[in-house]
Amino acid sequence: MEIRAIEDDVDRVRTIVTTSEPNTSFHYVGLDEPDKPTVLSWPTTSRNPNPSSSPPRRALVITRVNQTTHEIVVDLSKNAVVSDRVYGGHGFPLLTFDEQTAADDLILKYPPFAAAVARRGLRIEEVACGSFTVGWYGPRTTGDKTKRVVRVMCYTYQGTANVYMRPIEGVTTTVDLDLMVIVGFRDRLVVPVPKADGTDYRESEQKPPFGPRLKGIAVVQPDGPNFAIDGNWIRWATWNFHLSFDMRVGPIISLAFINDIEKHESRRVLYKAFISELFVPYMDLTEEWYYRTFFDVGEYGVGLSAVSLEPLRDCPKNAAFMDAFVVGQDGRPVNMSNIFCVFERSGGDIMWRHTEALIPNRVTREVRSEVSLVVRMVSAVGNYDYIIDWEFKQSGSIIAKVGLTGVLEVRGTKYTHKDQIREEVYGTLLSENTIGSNHDHFITYHLDLDVDGIENSFVKNKLQTTRVIDSPRKSYWKVVSETAKTESEAKIKLGSGASELLVVNPNKRTKMGNNVGYRLIPGSVVHPLLSDDDYPQIRGAFTKYNVWVTPYNKSEKWAGDLYVDQSQGDDTLAFWSSRNRNIENKDIVVWYTLGFHHAPCQEDFPLMPTLSGGFELRPTNFFERNPVLKLYTSEEVLKNKCENLKNSSI
Amino acid sequence: MEIRAIEDDVDRVRTIVTTSEPNTSFHYVGLDEPDKPTVLSWPTTSRNPNPSSSPPRRALVITRVNQTTHEIVVDLSKNAVVSDRVYGGHGFPLLTFDEQTAADDLILKYPPFAAAVARRGLRIEEVACGSFTVGWYGPRTTGDKTKRVVRVMCYTYQGTANVYMRPIEGVTTTVDLDLMVIVGFRDRLVVPVPKADGTDYRESEQKPPFGPRLKGIAVVQPDGPNFAIDGNWIRWATWNFHLSFDMRVGPIISLAFINDIEKHESRRVLYKAFISELFVPYMDLTEEWYYRTFFDVGEYGVGLSAVSLEPLRDCPKNAAFMDAFVVGQDGRPVNMSNIFCVFERSGGDIMWRHTEALIPNRVTREVRSEVSLVVRMVSAVGNYDYIIDWEFKQSGSIIAKVGLTGVLEVRGTKYTHKDQIREEVYGTLLSENTIGSNHDHFITYHLDLDVDGIENSFVKNKLQTTRVIDSPRKSYWKVVSETAKTESEAKIKLGSGASELLVVNPNKRTKMGNNVGYRLIPGSVVHPLLSDDDYPQIRGAFTKYNVWVTPYNKSEKWAGDLYVDQSQGDDTLAFWSSRNRNIENKDIVVWYTLGFHHAPCQEDFPLMPTLSGGFELRPTNFFERNPVLKLYTSEEVLKNKCENLKNSSI
Repeated sequence: MEIRAIEDDVDRVRTIVTTSEPNTSFHYVGLDEPDKPTVLSWPTTSRNPNPSSSPPRRALVITRVNQTTHEIVVDLSKNAVVSDRVYGGHGFPLLTFDEQTAADDLILKYPPFAAAVARRGLRIEEVACGSFTVGWYGPRTTGDKTKRVVRVMCYTYQGTANVYMRPIEGVTTTVDLDLMVIVGFRDRLVVPVPKADGTDYRESEQKPPFGPRLKGIAVVQPDGPNFAIDGNWIRWATWNFHLSFDMRVGPIISLAFINDIEKHESRRVLYKAFISELFVPYMDLTEEWYYRTFFDVGEYGVGLSAVSLEPLRDCPKNAAFMDAFVVGQDGRPVNMSNIFCVFERSGGDIMWRHTEALIPNRVTREVRSEVSLVVRMVSAVGNYDYIIDWEFKQSGSIIAKVGLTGVLEVRGTKYTHKDQIREEVYGTLLSENTIGSNHDHFITYHLDLDVDGIENSFVKNKLQTTRVIDSPRKSYWKVVSETAKTESEAKIKLGSGASELLVVNPNKRTKMGNNVGYRLIPGSVVHPLLSDDDYPQIRGAFTKYNVWVTPYNKSEKWAGDLYVDQSQGDDTLAFWSSRNRNIENKDIVVWYTLGFHHAPCQEDFPLMPTLSGGFELRPTNFFERNPVLKLYTSEEVLKNKCENLKNSSI
Repeated sequence: MEIRAIEDDVDRVRTIVTTSEPNTSFHYVGLDEPDKPTVLSWPTTSRNPNPSSSPPRRALVITRVNQTTHEIVVDLSKNAVVSDRVYGGHGFPLLTFDEQTAADDLILKYPPFAAAVARRGLRIEEVACGSFTVGWYGPRTTGDKTKRVVRVMCYTYQGTANVYMRPIEGVTTTVDLDLMVIVGFRDRLVVPVPKADGTDYRESEQKPPFGPRLKGIAVVQPDGPNFAIDGNWIRWATWNFHLSFDMRVGPIISLAFINDIEKHESRRVLYKAFISELFVPYMDLTEEWYYRTFFDVGEYGVGLSAVSLEPLRDCPKNAAFMDAFVVGQDGRPVNMSNIFCVFERSGGDIMWRHTEALIPNRVTREVRSEVSLVVRMVSAVGNYDYIIDWEFKQSGSIIAKVGLTGVLEVRGTKYTHKDQIREEVYGTLLSENTIGSNHDHFITYHLDLDVDGIENSFVKNKLQTTRVIDSPRKSYWKVVSETAKTESEAKIKLGSGASELLVVNPNKRTKMGNNVGYRLIPGSVVHPLLSDDDYPQIRGAFTKYNVWVTPYNKSEKWAGDLYVDQSQGDDTLAFWSSRNRNIENKDIVVWYTLGFHHAPCQEDFPLMPTLSGGFELRPTNFFERNPVLKLYTSEEVLKNKCENLKNSSI
């Protein structure tokens, strides 16, 4: 859909909703997803010839009105609210930026807080604050339980842009976001505020000695890119998919088809893929820290926190950019520029090669270099920057990558050297008075594969050691294929035992008789270390297994609950899956969790070099043969082009 | 050292050795490594001002004379053999190409073999053969044990360059390489030879339908590269290291220093790194296959099997190439062109970034894009092509990557559809009459890190779940640091439990008091599936743990034995390490094994898309702070340059 049209739609949604209830604050506006059959009947050619054939255009709106959460469905074709349901369960919707800003202003004008700042010898004019979700800690904290509160933590940016490196520790302010009043304030203790020196990361603020100055390097495509962006449809090589933006999750890849050259057929691979939740528990038990167990997707919005990408730095020279809209608390569309970039990656990798010297007096060499397509979005959820990449390969692989950079959440401390530390400080001393706190990142993907059709099965190919007799060998491994019949059979904790994990279409086979499938090749495997009965882990129970498989259910999208702010873990993937439904030869969804345990090191100060992880979805007996064998090579064309370019520049 | 000088040296070595013993066959000629102190006293500036300051130039030569193995040390400064030791233990040296060719010729002229070929309706003129090492299967196969034999397996290349896809199954010929006579021949059974159709991978042989033709893409550096190659020294950004070629292992990275801008000091990171062994056991128990448990480094030579890299396809446009020399069976140097390429990778990744919106009315954004340096060699050991990359990052990370491509080793079979199969076929039916055999790849790296000096320790930072009381939380994880005192404490099977693995210098600390170190971030974790008592696993016992740490010992280089052909596993890493030596605050060597279990799929036919794995060595409290914060950015310069380029091409 055209970006302009989205803006208009958003504005119409606001009008329709506020007409009936003027005093509404908008926490989420997104697509009310049509049923799968409806979507699949939608022409998947990029441009949609007649709008009438489009699915019903409905918006899902989540609002707060008089301290209650409303789930409103607006029908844009009818210009009407078709349903308005009050949500009565645990937890609250996404925080809005406006209310977070309001909370900050409230505190900065609050005399006791001003006193606390003065007491620390800081200037209130150089203090900035952030709203931290409070989590849920069981009966003990019933006070917070029913109110929509946040803890507001403040920092001074005196002498630096790296505000998170200068925390004002010991002061906790609790704000009720609905009433927008301070409901709690405590100045527990004074801790030295880390110095500004050496914290700034802006190029303009750096002082010598500098690193070596590298001469420029760039990717050029003299004849232009090979991809076409048509509204939200992206076509590249044999791929054709839809990219949309959601203020909660950010990028949503859907309806990914790959053109099978041999079969002259566009084959379905992926119905929908996105990051369902991003759980970041900290391991610091001090009063100002213990509750920091963030769910970035459901509490802050990875889409809402998306940032404009900088040409030539965030994305290479050959990238194309796309804008997006989020929705303000007032329901108005807010244009965000350069939110996605799309570019062809040419990183010097080899797609395939072989040199054959076995045939006498003849050496054969054939090589193809790798070119792939990358879709990127960056979300800066507070201190952390998440680089979210979806990479499509000509071989049929889809690679999901997440890069973690940005700045750490650090705690102020009196310590200036490790030898002074005699207590548990929950992290690493990175610089004077600066502790980098231990934490985890769990990134849970919703992967609705539709391999060559809707009905799929999840298969574990176990590689099983087998003893043998009557052979010079004593053992070998064989593949023992197990199809998961129910959800419980598909829960997998990676790391123990060797097996290949596949989503196959049991109703489609290759000429040789193998089930067509896609394999999940895991990366960055991590397991939660919190106890199962710990409150943050009850809410983050969906991280217990690296892989879950559920039958498709339109209402099961949010691994950590739709209302994850102060959720109690009663509507998570772990809960749904406990029903142990049948998943064999059904429309199934794979949930994959990758992650990192992060014990900071000094190289992460004052800003972290990117740490990346990801996984691959790789065709496995999906094609009859290597699908990239018959690619044209265009190096020669290019070679001449580039010689011209080169010469001309001399 | 200049490439020319190497050629001369090799030739002098031959003269010196053959003078005393004309009837010598050369199986290995390489550097007789000087003692570490001597090497470290060698000026590490790239060009060596006066040769006299060079370490003693000695060659290690391994020869076969009258069916005995000789280890000869030649002193090039003295022009003399300084020692000639007869090796009396188990196992044999690298196979030479010449003897493999001779063995093939022998068989192609052998009437019973010609008959076997005719019996299968094939033309002997279109048959090519390969020598397969026979392994060791204990007392049962004493016949083979003391003789240097290989099994020669043959293929027809009738109608295809993809000779490995057309195996002549059922025929086994055994050749004594020393006597160069056939000592065994068996034509066990006739199996259909897979058809040539669709097996050829040469561009010239492809028929429509073709994939989409992509427009060209290239990396350009209008102002030239940022690296300098001076003999075997490579300088780039803050890195300075030595790259040499060895006919056994291929690339050897040594004396890697990184320039610490803040400290104005060139700091030692790596003394030496190379692939020590590459173990590839197949899982097929049939008579013609059971023994196929190859050790590519020690049996065939990953260096000896290196292939010329193709500009623009194997390495990008901005690559520089280096030649190398191997040594023929006659001791003469054989020039191999374009064996290494060195290039700057600009794959569109982000080195670090942050967008800061917390400070009122001010948005700060700072981004640096990633540019790294890659050193590449490709080795085609028979059917497989191994892409060996060493990547250096400005952040101080060193990333080792291996890409697997080339063609599979397939077994001919009568089957044309999976449904016909009622027996164990040890693999996947990839095409008519073609079984892709299950197998593993274990790639074992020798990593002699010298972190800021020679004395280092190996540290496990275990992330340990801890129950808590008097907190709203019930648990958190803390870092429990354990220094491995002996070799047994450093044996690690990855996958169970969370821990960070570091090599630290216990004698050097940061200002904050943290031990300077480098972290090993594993990737492609794999564990052997063969039983410990199985003969191939006894020889490949070094794969049992993903990580081993040994005290530096000049004689411990070959994880699988120096003489791995028919070795009996009595001189492997597993054996050395059983001495359980002290490794704390010593000069230590880390051995890391990555790998893949490979159950082939149809996409691997007739040629495999690259499958990659690797690991990272990442500075961890090595620097006082993020070492890439103060990089200049040259995008602007570049931007203009590229605009010129672009315009000129229109």
